[in-house]
Amino acid sequence: MAKKLAKKKTAKKKIVRKAVKAKKSGRMIYYFGQTKCDGDGTMRDLLGGKGANLAQMVKIGLPVPSGFTITTQTCIDYYANHQKFPAGLEDQILRNLKTIENETKKKFGDPTNALLLSVRSGARDSMPGMMDTILNLGLNDETVVGLAKATGNPRFAYDSYRRFIQMYGDVVMGVQKRHENEDEPFDEVMDGLKHQLGIENDTELTEEALRELIKRYFRLIKDRTGKNFPQDPFKQLIGAVGSVFGSWMNERAILYRRKYKIPDEWGTAVNVQTMVFGNMGDDCATGVAFTRDPATGENIFYGEYLVNAQGEDVVAGVRTPLPMTAMAKDPVFKDTYKQLVKVRERLEKKFGDVQDFEFTIEKKKLYMLQTRNGKRTAIAYVKIAHDMVKQKLMKPTHALKSADPDALSQLLAPIFDLKAYAAAKKEGRLLTTGLPAGPGAAAGQLVFTAAKAEELAEAGERVVLARVETSPEDLRGMIAAEGILTSRGGVSSHAALVARQMGKVCVAGAGEISIDYGKGTLTCAGHTLKEGDAVSINGSNGEVFAGNIETADSELKQVLVSKTMKPKQSKVFQYYDFIMKLADKHRTLGLRTNADTPEQVRQAIAFGAEGIGLTRTEHMFFEGDRIDAMREMILAESEDVRRAALKKLLPYQREDFEGIFKALEGRPATIRLLDPPLHEFVPHDEKSQADLAKKLKISPEVVAKRVASLHEFNPMLGHRGCRLGISYPEISAMQARAIFEAASKVQKSGIQVRPEIMVPLVGFKKELDNQVAVIHEAAAEVQKETGQKIKYLVGTMIEIPRGALTADAIAETAEFFSFGTNDLTQTTLGMSRDDMGSFLNKYTEEGIFKANPFASVDIAGVGQLMKIAVQKGRESRPKIKLGICGEHGGDPHSVHFCHELGLDYVSCSPFRVPVARLAAAQAAVQ
Amino acid sequence: MAKKLAKKKTAKKKIVRKAVKAKKSGRMIYYFGQTKCDGDGTMRDLLGGKGANLAQMVKIGLPVPSGFTITTQTCIDYYANHQKFPAGLEDQILRNLKTIENETKKKFGDPTNALLLSVRSGARDSMPGMMDTILNLGLNDETVVGLAKATGNPRFAYDSYRRFIQMYGDVVMGVQKRHENEDEPFDEVMDGLKHQLGIENDTELTEEALRELIKRYFRLIKDRTGKNFPQDPFKQLIGAVGSVFGSWMNERAILYRRKYKIPDEWGTAVNVQTMVFGNMGDDCATGVAFTRDPATGENIFYGEYLVNAQGEDVVAGVRTPLPMTAMAKDPVFKDTYKQLVKVRERLEKKFGDVQDFEFTIEKKKLYMLQTRNGKRTAIAYVKIAHDMVKQKLMKPTHALKSADPDALSQLLAPIFDLKAYAAAKKEGRLLTTGLPAGPGAAAGQLVFTAAKAEELAEAGERVVLARVETSPEDLRGMIAAEGILTSRGGVSSHAALVARQMGKVCVAGAGEISIDYGKGTLTCAGHTLKEGDAVSINGSNGEVFAGNIETADSELKQVLVSKTMKPKQSKVFQYYDFIMKLADKHRTLGLRTNADTPEQVRQAIAFGAEGIGLTRTEHMFFEGDRIDAMREMILAESEDVRRAALKKLLPYQREDFEGIFKALEGRPATIRLLDPPLHEFVPHDEKSQADLAKKLKISPEVVAKRVASLHEFNPMLGHRGCRLGISYPEISAMQARAIFEAASKVQKSGIQVRPEIMVPLVGFKKELDNQVAVIHEAAAEVQKETGQKIKYLVGTMIEIPRGALTADAIAETAEFFSFGTNDLTQTTLGMSRDDMGSFLNKYTEEGIFKANPFASVDIAGVGQLMKIAVQKGRESRPKIKLGICGEHGGDPHSVHFCHELGLDYVSCSPFRVPVARLAAAQAAVQ
Repeated sequence: MAKKLAKKKTAKKKIVRKAVKAKKSGRMIYYFGQTKCDGDGTMRDLLGGKGANLAQMVKIGLPVPSGFTITTQTCIDYYANHQKFPAGLEDQILRNLKTIENETKKKFGDPTNALLLSVRSGARDSMPGMMDTILNLGLNDETVVGLAKATGNPRFAYDSYRRFIQMYGDVVMGVQKRHENEDEPFDEVMDGLKHQLGIENDTELTEEALRELIKRYFRLIKDRTGKNFPQDPFKQLIGAVGSVFGSWMNERAILYRRKYKIPDEWGTAVNVQTMVFGNMGDDCATGVAFTRDPATGENIFYGEYLVNAQGEDVVAGVRTPLPMTAMAKDPVFKDTYKQLVKVRERLEKKFGDVQDFEFTIEKKKLYMLQTRNGKRTAIAYVKIAHDMVKQKLMKPTHALKSADPDALSQLLAPIFDLKAYAAAKKEGRLLTTGLPAGPGAAAGQLVFTAAKAEELAEAGERVVLARVETSPEDLRGMIAAEGILTSRGGVSSHAALVARQMGKVCVAGAGEISIDYGKGTLTCAGHTLKEGDAVSINGSNGEVFAGNIETADSELKQVLVSKTMKPKQSKVFQYYDFIMKLADKHRTLGLRTNADTPEQVRQAIAFGAEGIGLTRTEHMFFEGDRIDAMREMILAESEDVRRAALKKLLPYQREDFEGIFKALEGRPATIRLLDPPLHEFVPHDEKSQADLAKKLKISPEVVAKRVASLHEFNPMLGHRGCRLGISYPEISAMQARAIFEAASKVQKSGIQVRPEIMVPLVGFKKELDNQVAVIHEAAAEVQKETGQKIKYLVGTMIEIPRGALTADAIAETAEFFSFGTNDLTQTTLGMSRDDMGSFLNKYTEEGIFKANPFASVDIAGVGQLMKIAVQKGRESRPKIKLGICGEHGGDPHSVHFCHELGLDYVSCSPFRVPVARLAAAQAAVQ
Repeated sequence: MAKKLAKKKTAKKKIVRKAVKAKKSGRMIYYFGQTKCDGDGTMRDLLGGKGANLAQMVKIGLPVPSGFTITTQTCIDYYANHQKFPAGLEDQILRNLKTIENETKKKFGDPTNALLLSVRSGARDSMPGMMDTILNLGLNDETVVGLAKATGNPRFAYDSYRRFIQMYGDVVMGVQKRHENEDEPFDEVMDGLKHQLGIENDTELTEEALRELIKRYFRLIKDRTGKNFPQDPFKQLIGAVGSVFGSWMNERAILYRRKYKIPDEWGTAVNVQTMVFGNMGDDCATGVAFTRDPATGENIFYGEYLVNAQGEDVVAGVRTPLPMTAMAKDPVFKDTYKQLVKVRERLEKKFGDVQDFEFTIEKKKLYMLQTRNGKRTAIAYVKIAHDMVKQKLMKPTHALKSADPDALSQLLAPIFDLKAYAAAKKEGRLLTTGLPAGPGAAAGQLVFTAAKAEELAEAGERVVLARVETSPEDLRGMIAAEGILTSRGGVSSHAALVARQMGKVCVAGAGEISIDYGKGTLTCAGHTLKEGDAVSINGSNGEVFAGNIETADSELKQVLVSKTMKPKQSKVFQYYDFIMKLADKHRTLGLRTNADTPEQVRQAIAFGAEGIGLTRTEHMFFEGDRIDAMREMILAESEDVRRAALKKLLPYQREDFEGIFKALEGRPATIRLLDPPLHEFVPHDEKSQADLAKKLKISPEVVAKRVASLHEFNPMLGHRGCRLGISYPEISAMQARAIFEAASKVQKSGIQVRPEIMVPLVGFKKELDNQVAVIHEAAAEVQKETGQKIKYLVGTMIEIPRGALTADAIAETAEFFSFGTNDLTQTTLGMSRDDMGSFLNKYTEEGIFKANPFASVDIAGVGQLMKIAVQKGRESRPKIKLGICGEHGGDPHSVHFCHELGLDYVSCSPFRVPVARLAAAQAAVQ
């Protein structure tokens, strides 16, 4: 409780600060109605999204019930003013009420012809968790009588009144349940009455009963609050407005803002609007519609309506609404329908995007209550953007801005068959939910070892590899598997990184799962699965199922990756391609990929990559016999033996690079020298060590001793990166030679080659100097041997704070920097991404992390170092090439930041390239 | 080779840059002699140490052979000028030569009355590795005849000539051995001749033989270089000067500068001086003297001389020199002795410090060849400083500046009995040399477990605890042991940190040692020692000996620590105390200590600490039964069980703090909340886990499972520091309560208490907010319960880069910062101090590390973050209290940096307090 208060206090402090700074214009209210309209659609910041769009609808002549918007600034002032209304607000409310009264010819509080109001919150972006709506405000013991008379429908009038009292009592007066397992107090009262009367449904309550219910509601309110329900309509209004302001700082709203990075300082607007009634009879209705289909993007009028109902009834789902197509044929509403069709057109034209709007029909008369840009699926996004841009209804820049780039990966992810998925859920086969670490769905036989995964995959079986955690030794198994499931590690764990790199489905850190390698079992939630049992995982949401759920490749994947479909055959591809080309036209950031194999390179190019930003040479050491030569090299006790083993590795590496250079077809390739600590390459169990000893013809004790000597307390901070190359320059020399020999060979075949050799983990200029000398020497030798001139660059990763802090010195040698934001985040935050699972949730809950810093660049910390490095690097070398190759390169927020920093390119895993492409374009047009 | 060249190139580039900037005054030479003296003792930068002091000696009327100094700037210009003499240098040399000729009435190259010269290098600080001296320059085939005649000693003349040729041929013309196992070529030629003539000693070479030798030397030079030995004296001089310049950039000189952090850009001066001869007969002599005893500091005339000899003979040690006292009684030299006594007095008076000088007596006439401040032992330092300041011979600020503060720890370290040590070495008992990690000497029985160490220590035995590495579980054993020896880990490993903290002797990372816990043996260099065998270690230099070597407490330690001696009884204490009080008078930095027990606090106060800068509360959990409650708390599966265990720990912690507050007697105490990862507290072997399970009445499987769940890949970057307190606020609450309860109790007894509660590992302001709320809550509760008001501060360690980078936000909450430079160095450099052993040596050799960054603050990297944090912290909270509590707080260089940063205090382990005290004073007066 103390903590919650503290949380509120901090948030409030911020608002106060903003308010003190804010220039007070004095105007707190913007009117919209038939006689005047003060605002328009551009004023989201001041009027909130809802208010601005209401004004905009009035401006374009759509029928909007008259009303006014109290500005977001007023909300900020309210908090600055110790949660009291700023001076003058009540006056301004009164003045604007008067205008409504004049327009509607009704009077607020008039017993015979009462003006009734709705009061809604409306922040800049729509925000669940805040007070939503109070309807029928202005009803009291007198005006309800008038309403009954005017409508000739007393039951309607008293039902409206009791709904208003209930809502107001709950939201404004705080009559709410006091314990988790209590019923809502108003419901309790109503149920009591129904029980007493022996009825079941609310609709059976007569006018009489409703009047009794209203009395009991008044008693409840008095008992709980010591206050009477306010009969004065103006008091009601003031209370409701204050309540909207207050709801900006309720816990759910704060949590939501934390999650979506919405600043507390925005504040909320309040919309006060004349009530219209969709529930006055069968010539009344209420509905929600989209100007196009938000699921498919089809250009159809999509939506539904309910006859004789209020908005809340649509949501409550008591009756099934009708589709819009039904309205066209309904003789009562067919004129209104025609009007709506025009509204639909005008909305798209004026708002330049698909609109999601609410309307009410009161006695055949149409009223527009709200409109906003419609949320849509990824597929709808590409289709709508494509269609509306071509129809010149949407600005190209808006088309780029109007999607969450992350959603694009939906287009590529394999998917569960929807029916099979629903069935599995129904059957209770959901075991647990881990971290969504590699999007898409996968199903197959459960295996626990890389060897078994390979074996079964070779036999044509689909497998899901489950490990406590994965290591580079599991790589071949991961390649063989459909999906990867781990019980330990976060969204940036080895499993997750490799999975995203390969576009594999992955659920990581499913902590409730217990894996017993010895018994070959996976236990979770009372279920025990054995090796070979079917298991299905969804890496888009982290779900793990027992048993099989059928999956399918997405259409776009069929075109771009598996090539089982031609581009011409796929509409989705054409829409996607249209958007991507639009993005390319606008973005200024270059786009590269992190790829270690020719296959990955080709995929990435298909996705739009313009080169490689990171090739991790170590991944190449795990294939085939190479690992033996690698291990021989590592276990060598003298430089001679090490050199001999390196000689064996050289042709492998050369081949690797040849393949990559060819696949790149002239594009640049950043190649990182050996980075991970050597212990990652050697076997740790006795049996494998004995096998290795036999192969290398040395004693198992020697192997065991050397392996033990490689043990490190904190391998992340140990003997790795350029530290290896400095200790064993012959390793770097071999790698450099392999690069240059491959470059030379491929160049001879007429393909341009542009290697950019990257020295990892540099913190001291002299580290780089040391390795660059080795690289230049190899280059000189190979160029002399082959007579080929090779154009290459040498540079470094900036991935430890010292590298960033001394970037000026390092740039004297480095021709490029690439930000290794994974390690830079680990060191800057002092947090191991593999170990943060134990506090990640807590940190997110407490709002310490606004986002997972391993998913989205921590701008305040890591970003500051990046800024320092960019600035210092350019001081020494104004034209230094700058990029990013950490996982963040595929995260839209981080891409945005990189654009602001002025980097030359971002690099990400092949499957994230479309996301980064779009994000880069968004950054450029915003 | 390529790397060496690269190294030279970088160094040269720097010089060139400096030279281009340097304002050229045009004057390249400063003369010193009877008729004029251009320089003085203040001009070290321009004239080098030797040149400035020669000029100063001339200024105060001491007999110095005439000569001149070519400035260091000229050396810099020489490198800027592609290693050619700057224009005008030869003219200036000629002009100054003329002045020497006029003064000495000799002529350079005159066959009958030749002026002979010495040429010496002279950098700002004396620097081994550079060309030292060429004597007798000016001799050639003609002038040697004249010298023979003038001295009436042809053998002397020809011997001088061949010495000159040999030296010049070697140093200037580069006739040197070409392989490691060759003899020096000039020696080879001489040995050939001697063999041919059948003689053994050089002295048996006749004039005839020397002339033959000279011929052969000429042939050797011609064969090797294709050039003749230069007969033109001016050419000889130009060659020698160029050679001195060249030696500034030879490899040994560069390495030396790297080691002692001397910038390449200083350059060296060249001193050209008239030769005087101490080897012209028995009325000639040469000697080296100190104005006081450099070993004891006694005020006696200390030194030695050789009759009829040149300087090099003293060094060569062919004849045994006589002590200065003998000269007083020698009828030939007694007048010269009287003159020397006066010189001694004048030197101390004018130079204000003990002088180490060289002189030559040529035919009873005294010449001063050099003087400089004498190097001395720590004991001599304190005595000399005490005596000379009291005698008003030395300025107090100079007394502070004239020592290496590090050397002060010599005064406290236990020592090997010198005879026993020499014997052990002679007997070949030296096993290996590890890293000197805790100064002093220790001997005892070898044990391999903490339990055994305690057992034997309780039985009154002295033991040395040997471990592969130590962990907090070994703490009690480390306390029990005389010394600690590890085969793994660096000078900042756990063993080393704890050892220095406790003033224990420690040799760490002795990698040649192999420890087999199973067999209970330690193997090294062919020796195998068993448990119980005697072993002796010297933590001041890292030596490890088999067998016992007797040790003794130093006098100062007897006064300050063991209190076996009263201050009044100890002269050493009085000298030490005098200097310390002088230091206190000048320093502006506060001085605190890192102490975890009342005993350590008392020691630190005796050493001069003014409060605690760091109390590590976790150390307290290892004593007695506490560890059981601690483990119960850690293994708790629910908050309730955890709270129950914490309740058991509370009284222990309260007691701890009471003891500390009492010992502090009103001084402030910074107390850090729980920091290390929890797995450090739990047992990892099966047996101990079973024992624990029994104690806690839970199943061993549960213990094993929970312990396993605490495993981390990179514990340094894992669930520790404030992350623990945020996950388990009840732990912080218990610790805070213990602090406030103790404070309240001690305060009641009339002792002021000023706790400063420090939250560790903060990177986000909200982490601190979270913990500070818990602390304030505990404070409020305890203050309410006791009715006592407690003045306390809350603050944080800045120990991860993000903390430094966002210090402005953090300082909104933090009332103080303390730089945790151990972890800040690990994260900023991305280097684990426990794992860096594998590349530390290489990095030092390659000059990547100028100093071990865990011993001395890495100013360019870590220092930059500290600067950012200081600046940002003060922006938010101008009066924020700033300190440092990493190991660096006891390192003089780092103390200096902290002074420059403007910190309020440094904190270090008790035994480093005197060092830091002196270093702080030096920083203030420099």
